[in-house]
Amino acid sequence: MTEPRVLVLDADPLPRLDRLAGRASILHADENTLASRLPEANVLLVWDFLSDAVRDAWPGPGPRPEWVHTASAGVDRLLFPELVSSPTVITNARGVFDRPIAEYVAGLVLVFAKDFLGSWELQRQRRWQHRETAKVHGSRAVVVGSGPIGRTVGRTLRALGIEVALVGRRAQESDEDFGRVHASESLPELLPRADWVVCAAPLTDATRGMFDRAVFDLMRPGAHFVNIGRGQHVVEEDLAAALHEGRLAGAALDVFATEPLPADSPLWDAPGLLVSPHMSGDTFGWRDDLAEQFLDNFDRWESGRPLFNVVDKGLGYVPNVQPAEPAPRTQQTQQTQQTEQPNEEGGTR
Amino acid sequence: MTEPRVLVLDADPLPRLDRLAGRASILHADENTLASRLPEANVLLVWDFLSDAVRDAWPGPGPRPEWVHTASAGVDRLLFPELVSSPTVITNARGVFDRPIAEYVAGLVLVFAKDFLGSWELQRQRRWQHRETAKVHGSRAVVVGSGPIGRTVGRTLRALGIEVALVGRRAQESDEDFGRVHASESLPELLPRADWVVCAAPLTDATRGMFDRAVFDLMRPGAHFVNIGRGQHVVEEDLAAALHEGRLAGAALDVFATEPLPADSPLWDAPGLLVSPHMSGDTFGWRDDLAEQFLDNFDRWESGRPLFNVVDKGLGYVPNVQPAEPAPRTQQTQQTQQTEQPNEEGGTR
Repeated sequence: MTEPRVLVLDADPLPRLDRLAGRASILHADENTLASRLPEANVLLVWDFLSDAVRDAWPGPGPRPEWVHTASAGVDRLLFPELVSSPTVITNARGVFDRPIAEYVAGLVLVFAKDFLGSWELQRQRRWQHRETAKVHGSRAVVVGSGPIGRTVGRTLRALGIEVALVGRRAQESDEDFGRVHASESLPELLPRADWVVCAAPLTDATRGMFDRAVFDLMRPGAHFVNIGRGQHVVEEDLAAALHEGRLAGAALDVFATEPLPADSPLWDAPGLLVSPHMSGDTFGWRDDLAEQFLDNFDRWESGRPLFNVVDKGLGYVPNVQPAEPAPRTQQTQQTQQTEQPNEEGGTR
Repeated sequence: MTEPRVLVLDADPLPRLDRLAGRASILHADENTLASRLPEANVLLVWDFLSDAVRDAWPGPGPRPEWVHTASAGVDRLLFPELVSSPTVITNARGVFDRPIAEYVAGLVLVFAKDFLGSWELQRQRRWQHRETAKVHGSRAVVVGSGPIGRTVGRTLRALGIEVALVGRRAQESDEDFGRVHASESLPELLPRADWVVCAAPLTDATRGMFDRAVFDLMRPGAHFVNIGRGQHVVEEDLAAALHEGRLAGAALDVFATEPLPADSPLWDAPGLLVSPHMSGDTFGWRDDLAEQFLDNFDRWESGRPLFNVVDKGLGYVPNVQPAEPAPRTQQTQQTQQTEQPNEEGGTR
């Protein structure tokens, strides 16, 4: 009897796969070797989720894995025609990043409201300069993305007393969390009232480049924009122009069209822009959590049970109707988990 | 019939007192003129709450005002023997600063957890350097101060999934908000488990200098300390030493023994310390809110009804049993108010 072969597209050192000892052979590949190893694999684990290697290697000769798991919430790099039209099942890391990213966004909102960066700059100059700052309670946020990340962002902002409008692909009138979900067609009415606009959408053809000049022009001059989705959601030149012209008070980008952000990018010193290196979801233990989630799904695959977090390759994210996902097993995740209902539309990492 | 005389110890330009036109004469004093004007005043409004002028002027000759209101939560500058033993009633600004300060503390916790200052420093160098950060959900906070500010801080941290131990002067076993309130004698058991220690206590003889080497030694090396109380709560040299020796991961001080913090203070560049200029409670409109609160109490005083926010001069703060305070009238405050139960022990501003 042959052990199944799990091929790992590496980047970071991979934790915890020793749990597969005696159950599967683990093979490794990088961008150069992926094409030659792909025909041997039953399962492909895409650990380096920002790589284009899968897209490049997939069209080659030979059989293809029956299951591809990506250690990310976003699956945009896997939605190329040859994989979309193949029988291969794609699963993702839906759930792991929800709370870390929501905390990160709440932190950014408070950083802007309370001008902590201004205090830090004044501190470096040993200057005591009292300022008045904003109360976030009673302010208004628009969160674009009604998947688990957007929902957790919305709930966390609401816990701070912020009024949240959640925006999804389609309007829903009786959402159990938010009362209603707004359709993206409602953005022209929602944006002018918002103090905070957050992108937590999956990257699809419908959302690519959606945050452009037209959107920034609809926002208030005192408002802030936060992107923890994908860089390609934002027309970066339009955002930079809005900041330079004072049409927006500030913004925070954790994701960029090109990552790492090149050292000569004008975004590094756009006024009011906080740059962070695609880290909003990566809390201590995240690699363990991701590995445990894959291993839980591997248990199902091994025993022929349905996988969880199966991506709808047409939609480009995990839809709501899925087998129940087991609670991750790591101590950190258990400690920090609460009962939340995953709901429509996939997350963003 | 003589109009009552309201004497204002100035600093900032004072908003909204025109509401008293035809009902009271408004007099102004500064540190130099207070002693001579005090005998004429029926009411003293201490707008410049950090001034020692009242303490200096009070023992002089002549009658004294029957009511002193301070536009601050903390009343420490007014608790000198001659005023404490006099029949003059002291009231304070309890309630105005609760939510702004709670948001500020939540922001500081997230600034530390998510290393936003580290991202900002790297951004200035145009360096893309991914880091892992902390999840705050499931972490533990000790909030010292069970008055409205400490309680609102505690509730706000709890809304982020942080486990909060509230510490007051006395233990209470059936607190309706927190289940229990711990006595300060429990700090040796609570501090070693805490990720975040927040001082939101009133400054009294019992709390002066309470955050000293012994406390910092009990805290974990990965923990952070936040003070939004009074500078005199903290032995600043002990905190600086703990930070320099890496016994604490970081701290934020919004208040200092000497304010403004002198430019040559070693605190400006203590490692891991974020300095801000006594602004945690000062959200846009705060002066209006403070003035409205005084005017609401003036309505009561004028018509002989009991004042609200009356300080227990023995305890050094407003105890829980008080006539109901009316909701502030300004639009901003109405918009941002929720139903909260004021409870034991006064706040900190």
